[in-house]
Amino acid sequence: MPNTFGHLFRVTTWGESHGPAVGAVVDGCPPRLPLAAGDIQADLDRRRPGQSDITTPRKEEDAVEILSGVFEGRTTGAPISLLVRNADQRPGAYDEMREKFRPSHADYTYQAKYGVRDHRGGGRSSARETVGRVAAGAIAKKILALAGTAQHGAPVEVRAFVTRIHDLAAPAAALEQFPTLAEVEATAVRCPHPATAAAMIARIKEVRAGGDSVGGVIACRVRGVPPGLGEPVFDRLEADLAKAMLSLPATKGFELGSGFAGTLLKGSAHNDAFAPRAGGGVRTLTNRSGGVQGGISNGEEIFFNVAFKPTATIMRPQKTVDIHGDATELAARGRHDPCVVPRAVVIVEAMTALVLLDHWLRHAAQNRTFKF
Amino acid sequence: MPNTFGHLFRVTTWGESHGPAVGAVVDGCPPRLPLAAGDIQADLDRRRPGQSDITTPRKEEDAVEILSGVFEGRTTGAPISLLVRNADQRPGAYDEMREKFRPSHADYTYQAKYGVRDHRGGGRSSARETVGRVAAGAIAKKILALAGTAQHGAPVEVRAFVTRIHDLAAPAAALEQFPTLAEVEATAVRCPHPATAAAMIARIKEVRAGGDSVGGVIACRVRGVPPGLGEPVFDRLEADLAKAMLSLPATKGFELGSGFAGTLLKGSAHNDAFAPRAGGGVRTLTNRSGGVQGGISNGEEIFFNVAFKPTATIMRPQKTVDIHGDATELAARGRHDPCVVPRAVVIVEAMTALVLLDHWLRHAAQNRTFKF
Amino acid sequence: MPNTFGHLFRVTTWGESHGPAVGAVVDGCPPRLPLAAGDIQADLDRRRPGQSDITTPRKEEDAVEILSGVFEGRTTGAPISLLVRNADQRPGAYDEMREKFRPSHADYTYQAKYGVRDHRGGGRSSARETVGRVAAGAIAKKILALAGTAQHGAPVEVRAFVTRIHDLAAPAAALEQFPTLAEVEATAVRCPHPATAAAMIARIKEVRAGGDSVGGVIACRVRGVPPGLGEPVFDRLEADLAKAMLSLPATKGFELGSGFAGTLLKGSAHNDAFAPRAGGGVRTLTNRSGGVQGGISNGEEIFFNVAFKPTATIMRPQKTVDIHGDATELAARGRHDPCVVPRAVVIVEAMTALVLLDHWLRHAAQNRTFKF
Amino acid sequence: MPNTFGHLFRVTTWGESHGPAVGAVVDGCPPRLPLAAGDIQADLDRRRPGQSDITTPRKEEDAVEILSGVFEGRTTGAPISLLVRNADQRPGAYDEMREKFRPSHADYTYQAKYGVRDHRGGGRSSARETVGRVAAGAIAKKILALAGTAQHGAPVEVRAFVTRIHDLAAPAAALEQFPTLAEVEATAVRCPHPATAAAMIARIKEVRAGGDSVGGVIACRVRGVPPGLGEPVFDRLEADLAKAMLSLPATKGFELGSGFAGTLLKGSAHNDAFAPRAGGGVRTLTNRSGGVQGGISNGEEIFFNVAFKPTATIMRPQKTVDIHGDATELAARGRHDPCVVPRAVVIVEAMTALVLLDHWLRHAAQNRTFKF
Repeated sequence: MPNTFGHLFRVTTWGESHGPAVGAVVDGCPPRLPLAAGDIQADLDRRRPGQSDITTPRKEEDAVEILSGVFEGRTTGAPISLLVRNADQRPGAYDEMREKFRPSHADYTYQAKYGVRDHRGGGRSSARETVGRVAAGAIAKKILALAGTAQHGAPVEVRAFVTRIHDLAAPAAALEQFPTLAEVEATAVRCPHPATAAAMIARIKEVRAGGDSVGGVIACRVRGVPPGLGEPVFDRLEADLAKAMLSLPATKGFELGSGFAGTLLKGSAHNDAFAPRAGGGVRTLTNRSGGVQGGISNGEEIFFNVAFKPTATIMRPQKTVDIHGDATELAARGRHDPCVVPRAVVIVEAMTALVLLDHWLRHAAQNRTFKF
Repeated sequence: MPNTFGHLFRVTTWGESHGPAVGAVVDGCPPRLPLAAGDIQADLDRRRPGQSDITTPRKEEDAVEILSGVFEGRTTGAPISLLVRNADQRPGAYDEMREKFRPSHADYTYQAKYGVRDHRGGGRSSARETVGRVAAGAIAKKILALAGTAQHGAPVEVRAFVTRIHDLAAPAAALEQFPTLAEVEATAVRCPHPATAAAMIARIKEVRAGGDSVGGVIACRVRGVPPGLGEPVFDRLEADLAKAMLSLPATKGFELGSGFAGTLLKGSAHNDAFAPRAGGGVRTLTNRSGGVQGGISNGEEIFFNVAFKPTATIMRPQKTVDIHGDATELAARGRHDPCVVPRAVVIVEAMTALVLLDHWLRHAAQNRTFKF
Repeated sequence: MPNTFGHLFRVTTWGESHGPAVGAVVDGCPPRLPLAAGDIQADLDRRRPGQSDITTPRKEEDAVEILSGVFEGRTTGAPISLLVRNADQRPGAYDEMREKFRPSHADYTYQAKYGVRDHRGGGRSSARETVGRVAAGAIAKKILALAGTAQHGAPVEVRAFVTRIHDLAAPAAALEQFPTLAEVEATAVRCPHPATAAAMIARIKEVRAGGDSVGGVIACRVRGVPPGLGEPVFDRLEADLAKAMLSLPATKGFELGSGFAGTLLKGSAHNDAFAPRAGGGVRTLTNRSGGVQGGISNGEEIFFNVAFKPTATIMRPQKTVDIHGDATELAARGRHDPCVVPRAVVIVEAMTALVLLDHWLRHAAQNRTFKF
Repeated sequence: MPNTFGHLFRVTTWGESHGPAVGAVVDGCPPRLPLAAGDIQADLDRRRPGQSDITTPRKEEDAVEILSGVFEGRTTGAPISLLVRNADQRPGAYDEMREKFRPSHADYTYQAKYGVRDHRGGGRSSARETVGRVAAGAIAKKILALAGTAQHGAPVEVRAFVTRIHDLAAPAAALEQFPTLAEVEATAVRCPHPATAAAMIARIKEVRAGGDSVGGVIACRVRGVPPGLGEPVFDRLEADLAKAMLSLPATKGFELGSGFAGTLLKGSAHNDAFAPRAGGGVRTLTNRSGGVQGGISNGEEIFFNVAFKPTATIMRPQKTVDIHGDATELAARGRHDPCVVPRAVVIVEAMTALVLLDHWLRHAAQNRTFKF
């Protein structure tokens, strides 16, 4: 099960960085959904390397092929097999890694766990594995958009964006509005505050020139989620979001709503008062809860932050150990992404959509199938 | 499945705050483990209300009864049913909550989700549910201790402790050593730095006197974990730890190793260099990874932080809405825990042990069953 | 997971024959269902030993206690914990079995698997474990009855009954009608054909007098199931029914519809022609399919047979081996059920209901949540 | 989850009869296993259409491609993606089925369930889906062979074969020995009794000439399985075998050991007496249990029968209904397999191997990871 995510809308990913292909199988997709490769390709293009001058120049078309589960333009309820061929393989570029463990990478732990390791570009531990997640997430996003519109007239929208790169943070005030996709995509760094984005891009280039790397923080906001999603006690909505985010390469932290900073407030300042919602229902006057209370969505905007560490691959000599246990030194060569955070935006969106759709289905099954 | 946690060592909890009992069923426990109620009771006593003058005065013995799965002092491989009767039920104390949603509690979302709600003390959403987790976690901790000793001569030790209450944080330098259980338990607040602990206790009393509440941060450190635990790509060790922590009531954030602060470093400063380990194997010279790389334990100490929001129940009037959708006001009465963080220490340990043991079994199944 | 059954309506059973209690936890029960202990007790009474003079005289009240998940007479969506205390424990009666493996029982295999064994009355391998299944099944049956009525005006009815004991079979013609519960319950042997039932009872008494035992066949018929239940390719409806039945103690075979006998027909004689259903939809003119086609219910009556071997416990000396590996002899003493088949009728119904309800929820989740 | 089988060795299949490809993803394969496409191809060739003059003439190479999870000839512990392109697509041949439901096929139920249907050759309900099962099963068989040899010096061998076609059954005496693979493969019908095989082949040709079809029975025997496999109470070994078999297209029944016939014996005649095993351990003097007691393997040979109904596709006019609900008539054209039983032999072996390997891993995880 380690390569499968979700309970009712289930995604199984497979593939290595330098194998013949990567892909995913989606099981449990509702039938009759209009679906074509183009619905998926748009998000794969956002994830693709070589989009801009601040990402790795690896050349990949990342063209997705739908091998099953769609008939005459609609899903059939059968599993959807998604395939993306790997194009730009340079196995020779990784010969040094066959023998040496790259610091803060998965090389040593894979070797320790499995006793064998595909060293080429990190093999299975490469972020190339997320191609399958993004492809599946694109389907989930499409369903959520339609579902929200059908239920309450507005699509469920999942919007992730970069709020900090290294120590360059967008001003809080600038992030108060739910950004449009165009605002996020306006710059290569995917921070919707243009001035900060420009500084971030400069920083990334500067760091790359020095053979170094940086990380940062991605925020994700979701609107249009109805109350009721989340399955206490273990599958609380924030628990599954946290798992989804920490399952991504390079992530080190997750916080929902007020997060770590909220612990500095007293209860009287932290609680979100309820008020009647115009048109019926209940709303909160503030949203330190981040849209989730007791593990269940409350209808307010869901928002959370994810911390990404600086890329482990750097162009500088590093102390390490080889597979024989001897001390040695290693310096990465070849393609190098000095900051993965901008490309991770679409991956955060994909995982968020997978969590929300799976919970939507679970909630409906238990609570909407029968009327008592 | 929402009330079941784990894949091979599985815990299902059940019970409400003011029902007749709470409990858990543990499925998949290895057979022949010496086990008695006393092994579990010690941790339940650490979780129990009324332990000190800074917790809720709710009177509960919380005496655990083992109903199955143990024969003549040893586990049999059959499911272990654990039962704890609820003693101190005061349903009448909650009459106001039948009609009104408590701000930042689960009252509204449970009503929205299920269309029905046991309002007494929060029902299923009460932290009383964690009794079952702590009981199961105590079994997991015992197994981990024995397993580590059998494998490499030292028990796997899971130690959680309070590092911050409201804005009172223990000095970083004081937390560099792995604290002993005695150091943690020395004060009611479970912060192993005595001076800070005293200030924390004073703060909690002060806040209680004002009818308010506070939250804080719990750190958890684990030593003795062998390399290899964690199941990429979705069931990375940190992903399952994050899920475990965010499944706890009142948690708002999780960070592993360098966490959010680590994003302020460059890769050259963040990477953990490898070096040969005396006696064979590999170690890291620093541990910003927090003991996990590529989703798999690397043999270093695992450590992470968990953010707990201030208790939602406060003794002050709050604006809210009633179940008819009308604006109203509510002021909690009755028993009141102004800060849940100290009592959550043993719950964090329990969930950590459940994650580690489950991963130990999963790792062994795939990688240690056959030799090729 | 071995002690949990189902995906969305999940039952976890626990308990040993001579431990303090047996029970079950039901997770995923839809909320707002009216539920009281009485809804469950009726089926437990049908399973209870000592009902008649052809079953074991073990004295058990088998009174069920609902410990959670129900509030003011309705389910809340929280897990339902069901507890039945064991009353008639005679551990001393089983001293011989501590040392000797009973032939065709689970004694040897439990010892081989777990390295430890609760020998008292079979411990976990005892059919007493099915108390939890019957309790959970009673809830499922109630939901199915309400669901069928709400959807198409007639309850889903699950009716199991004995068709053969040893070589005494009810005439096929006598079984062509869907029997009423009263017809099934009219005799202690639960065969709705009175003459055959009388012969069966005589045979069971005769066999008991000889210290021997017999088995037989239970048929189960279900009407009111809508088309669409079943999840190809692995979770076909008949696959999950087969698993459910073969998970019961003493079962050796399962056949759906035409079953093994159907293999003697040619396709032209076996196929079920379709015809328009009065009032819309489609029906079949025959039902060799047994109500399931391609793994999915087709709206016709579902029917299947289950083979139960003769009770392994007999009052005659048998050759066996002791736990030291030495040849020895064993003769059972104490309470003795010469034929478990009549008491298994309600257990077959329970497992059938659990499968159908779980599939109903799964089908609704994928195919009824969204409209595309 | 409906398209995933297994808990620790998990197989997810995907693909339709006339889509671009079919395939499977195997998750949880132990690492370091030597594996090449050739290990899998041999079994795919046994399943392939067009092998002999009694099967469908559909032309398929069924060449498997390994897309992930294998590096330099060994498995890595990462998921193994297996792909087989569909070559012989004749979508036009199925135009009539777009409108009409084929009797005793899945056409109507798929339409009723999903509201949409890939009618070409049955789409997902086609037995072509079993390509992925056979490919995954070949890996499981290889592991079992190596595992048995490593543990006790003899491979675990899974051998299925045809024992009856229509009413032509091999004599019981002829089936007393565990047949060799060569004996099974000696004839196109895969019955190891040559005289019966010849009669069966003649019958199949005769039936085909008449535009009709037949079914039959496959037996499966497994030797070399150690005691201990099987996970009571729900995941008994026979329960998972029954599910595996009933998950196959066209199956109607399953019986283990003495099966339905065993219910005609008294307990004194049915019980398997225990005796010391030469060299230590315990054996049974007879094997009516079929190698499983209490849901757990006892070290004896495991054997069971599976009933396959006559192929639903026949070359004769049949009454049916079209998608508008109107009565009509249908006569299949095109490729036609008058008896699927011989080709199903390798599929039965595959599913058996998947069940046994999964249980081996589960057993090892709980009972062999720790020593207490």
